[in-house]
Amino acid sequence: MANKNTFEPNWRKTAPRANSFRSIFKYGDPEGFKHPNKRLVEELKNTFELSAADFKEKESTGDEIVDLKIPSQLSDEQISIFQNISGKENVSADEYERLKYSTGQTLEEHMKLRRKMVGKICDFVVHPRNKSEVEEIVKYCNKEKIPIVVYGGGTSVNFGLYPAGGGVTLVLSTHMNKIIELNETNQTVRVDAGILGPQLENALNNAKEEFQSQYRFTCGHFPQSFEYSSVGGWIVTLGSGQQSSYYGDAADLVLAVEMVTPAGTIRTLDFPATATGPKILDLIKGSEGIFGVVVEVTWKIFRYMPENRKYFGFIFKDWNSAVEASREISQGEFGMPAVFRISDAEETHHGLKLYGIEGTVFDKLMSFRGFKPKERCLFIATSDGSRSFTKNVKRQVKKIARKTGGMYLTSFPAKKWEPGRYKDPYLKEDLMDFGILIDTLETSIKWDNLFDVHQKVRQFIKARPKTICLSHASHFYPQGTNLYFIFILKENDLQAYKNFQKGIIETIVKSGGTLSHHHGVGKMTGFLMEKHLGRNQMNVLYALKKHFDPNNIMNPGGQLGL
Amino acid sequence: MANKNTFEPNWRKTAPRANSFRSIFKYGDPEGFKHPNKRLVEELKNTFELSAADFKEKESTGDEIVDLKIPSQLSDEQISIFQNISGKENVSADEYERLKYSTGQTLEEHMKLRRKMVGKICDFVVHPRNKSEVEEIVKYCNKEKIPIVVYGGGTSVNFGLYPAGGGVTLVLSTHMNKIIELNETNQTVRVDAGILGPQLENALNNAKEEFQSQYRFTCGHFPQSFEYSSVGGWIVTLGSGQQSSYYGDAADLVLAVEMVTPAGTIRTLDFPATATGPKILDLIKGSEGIFGVVVEVTWKIFRYMPENRKYFGFIFKDWNSAVEASREISQGEFGMPAVFRISDAEETHHGLKLYGIEGTVFDKLMSFRGFKPKERCLFIATSDGSRSFTKNVKRQVKKIARKTGGMYLTSFPAKKWEPGRYKDPYLKEDLMDFGILIDTLETSIKWDNLFDVHQKVRQFIKARPKTICLSHASHFYPQGTNLYFIFILKENDLQAYKNFQKGIIETIVKSGGTLSHHHGVGKMTGFLMEKHLGRNQMNVLYALKKHFDPNNIMNPGGQLGL
Repeated sequence: MANKNTFEPNWRKTAPRANSFRSIFKYGDPEGFKHPNKRLVEELKNTFELSAADFKEKESTGDEIVDLKIPSQLSDEQISIFQNISGKENVSADEYERLKYSTGQTLEEHMKLRRKMVGKICDFVVHPRNKSEVEEIVKYCNKEKIPIVVYGGGTSVNFGLYPAGGGVTLVLSTHMNKIIELNETNQTVRVDAGILGPQLENALNNAKEEFQSQYRFTCGHFPQSFEYSSVGGWIVTLGSGQQSSYYGDAADLVLAVEMVTPAGTIRTLDFPATATGPKILDLIKGSEGIFGVVVEVTWKIFRYMPENRKYFGFIFKDWNSAVEASREISQGEFGMPAVFRISDAEETHHGLKLYGIEGTVFDKLMSFRGFKPKERCLFIATSDGSRSFTKNVKRQVKKIARKTGGMYLTSFPAKKWEPGRYKDPYLKEDLMDFGILIDTLETSIKWDNLFDVHQKVRQFIKARPKTICLSHASHFYPQGTNLYFIFILKENDLQAYKNFQKGIIETIVKSGGTLSHHHGVGKMTGFLMEKHLGRNQMNVLYALKKHFDPNNIMNPGGQLGL
Repeated sequence: MANKNTFEPNWRKTAPRANSFRSIFKYGDPEGFKHPNKRLVEELKNTFELSAADFKEKESTGDEIVDLKIPSQLSDEQISIFQNISGKENVSADEYERLKYSTGQTLEEHMKLRRKMVGKICDFVVHPRNKSEVEEIVKYCNKEKIPIVVYGGGTSVNFGLYPAGGGVTLVLSTHMNKIIELNETNQTVRVDAGILGPQLENALNNAKEEFQSQYRFTCGHFPQSFEYSSVGGWIVTLGSGQQSSYYGDAADLVLAVEMVTPAGTIRTLDFPATATGPKILDLIKGSEGIFGVVVEVTWKIFRYMPENRKYFGFIFKDWNSAVEASREISQGEFGMPAVFRISDAEETHHGLKLYGIEGTVFDKLMSFRGFKPKERCLFIATSDGSRSFTKNVKRQVKKIARKTGGMYLTSFPAKKWEPGRYKDPYLKEDLMDFGILIDTLETSIKWDNLFDVHQKVRQFIKARPKTICLSHASHFYPQGTNLYFIFILKENDLQAYKNFQKGIIETIVKSGGTLSHHHGVGKMTGFLMEKHLGRNQMNVLYALKKHFDPNNIMNPGGQLGL
């Protein structure tokens, strides 16, 4: 055992080589890593019946230099137009760049790039400097029928960035990443759509210094991709942050946008409410690049009061009682926790290892008090807001947890969870070096079909031999919640993996979940859109598409199932 | 003085005659009245320089029987089709019925009907019994190009019900007013779209008895028109209730709908959130009957806990400090009050009379403490939710009010306000009997243009000699609020009134307010839609209209400015 516990696979600890395939698919910071800890490795070895020897050799690491010859379909004249609009230094026809900005973060893309399998790539990359350039580009592309894909932070997990029709990819995060105006009175911030989470959040946290404001602020939106996703991306994919139960989803947090479309530029009203017919802003939410380019965003902000944040965690006997407590909290009308997450038995089993709770005094106490391993379920939460509010939320949650049989675990688990909140995507790289795949799918459910969806999707996943399935519910509403499935398997066959993934998606929808709670549709799950929404609703999307983009240049080729 | 104070005009205290014009325009319950109290009468006499003699004779009371001969444009065959669909007892070609269901609650309609001025009326009235009948009717009307207007509760204040193209008016509240399913687990209720507020709310309040549920529930939506407006109407006009600062607006409260359109029937997803592209439900919100007929609604509900409700009120030195307190509350992140309303100096002056506060110990104390008449501003609020939450909201609001110079008035003013909350529309009838007009317009503003809009709109209204203008802010958001203007004037000339009203609407928009916060657009303010939204946004509405309703049969003729 001692031997086992000291074993550590030879994790990759260096950044990818410049211009390598790996440098494209590697998530986030090139120097950033989250190596699976020893407990997880043991679990993987047991599940997949691996020995230390299996962790010796890596294959398909994608370290080869990208050396492709894929002619651009654009003419020299077309290229020179883009050069004139955005400047020679802000455009590229180079294959590495084109592949890079045609790639998102699906597992399939990782698997393919490790094998040097390259699909369609865009013909040209442009980094526009401002919205007038975007207007010129859209106008010109519409005339020339050149497809446009918008790249914000590049974290799409459903082929949202895949340039099915080639064309131009616009990278918004390079230059269009500024804060335009902080309006303290209205508690709004106006930004370029390409700004990434940390740039926005840091400026808001330091508003006193940067904008001479009375208060410090926060954007309230912290998806797992926070560090590498853009505000525009949050809106057009209907994203949801880890504190959404308190702050709301991206759709709630955006007040107004400016969008450039082939049918002209739209600037939506920025009133806190307006009864002036169907709201064009609402159509733009979730539009995933098929109507136009969101260039500017007015975002609601909140006072930044980390000093008031409360952390709390509980262990429940089982999934049923954890869900019962969560529903009671969500419907209890005393305010919502910010982070709010319950793990099912299998995720709890792993979570206790990963958060370092296994082996602590809590672990012993839990077992002593009858919270059985592989049955017990972990609940972690924080509360944000004013002091009186966060205190009361914590107090009320504790009362409900007590009534539903939960044992209080102090602030410890939530505090252990927090620092790693954006780091899980880094696991993918390490595991895949040894042929182990980790991927996620998620859905939204109503309370009355939570158990059914959870059970059926788990059944499907677990029917595959030697497959780990961790699930949690997060993003809570009075009417239901999000179910998030993380699955870990050993698989080298791309098609086999794709079939498995497709089966999960189909099971989610068949069992009564929605196609996505916050990842969006992209080109990956679009095949189910018509079945999910019905022909008549799809026809509305087609009509809007035709209006905004009659030449079908905006992210064509299956995005949103169109 | 004693004489003055005992003077009471000869208010109408009897229901309108059957089949009279008055029976059509009279608001609400035929036996319901809210007679202006003595203090208001004194104020009116002073403002308009009237004597008791002016309150002796009534003119244009609309008591004449409707005796019109307006041939229906429908053929006998068409009529027989509708008879076959909904049954002979549920259709009518009678002129009285047709006029009745072609009429809403604009002041202009009141003025006209008092003068027996009748504009366009629908050709036929149908009271469908269920949604399949609505489907048959829409299909048939689409084939025959017969216009359709939907009548829910009939409380439109902007000619939303005016059948500009004639055709058929569908009255949904007659039969399609049932609760289909209460889902306690999901906290939703599924209803026919024609159900009126009290039917819904009573059933929810009595859920334990009626549905054997564990809790009692509330719908959370209480517009002034609550007693006579329908759930479907709340949604398609983007309504807002008097407790919206806590519960949310109608757009927040609807989870899903079923809508019958010429392009087919749509049933939107009913998940608490879904990232499956632009949401068709969002387009239906605010669609004011131009796309189709909302036949079924899934509505979010809340636990009914009146025992936790707190009432509180304050007086502030002036409008500035009342606004400052309100913004601090709205941005303070301790939870929002439910009722939340600040009156400007002129409304406060009248409000203190109307709520019976004038002359009480509070009045004396206010004056003693330096809250000067005609400067001081009244704040009334309630808090809803769980016990700990409502207590905390009240406590925090009191703290903020103290800091911003407010004096606590106990629960007295809010409790005085509450019983009359739905009754103000009844004033219109009495005043108009003596040639005095009372009407309202409203807008939504951001905090940083609240003062500007308030001031400019007041300026415009007060520029008319002898005109009372009461304003309040209600429906609060962190980003701003609603401004509500009530104006009282003596005017007999219809065109003069219309010009005045148009001027107010134009001033609202010119000074930076939105065209409507919660009344909708209808056919009254549509003329400003394109200017307000811009051509490109209007084009999106046209594209949607063309998709759903290619033959332009759904509420045609200027609704939403189309």
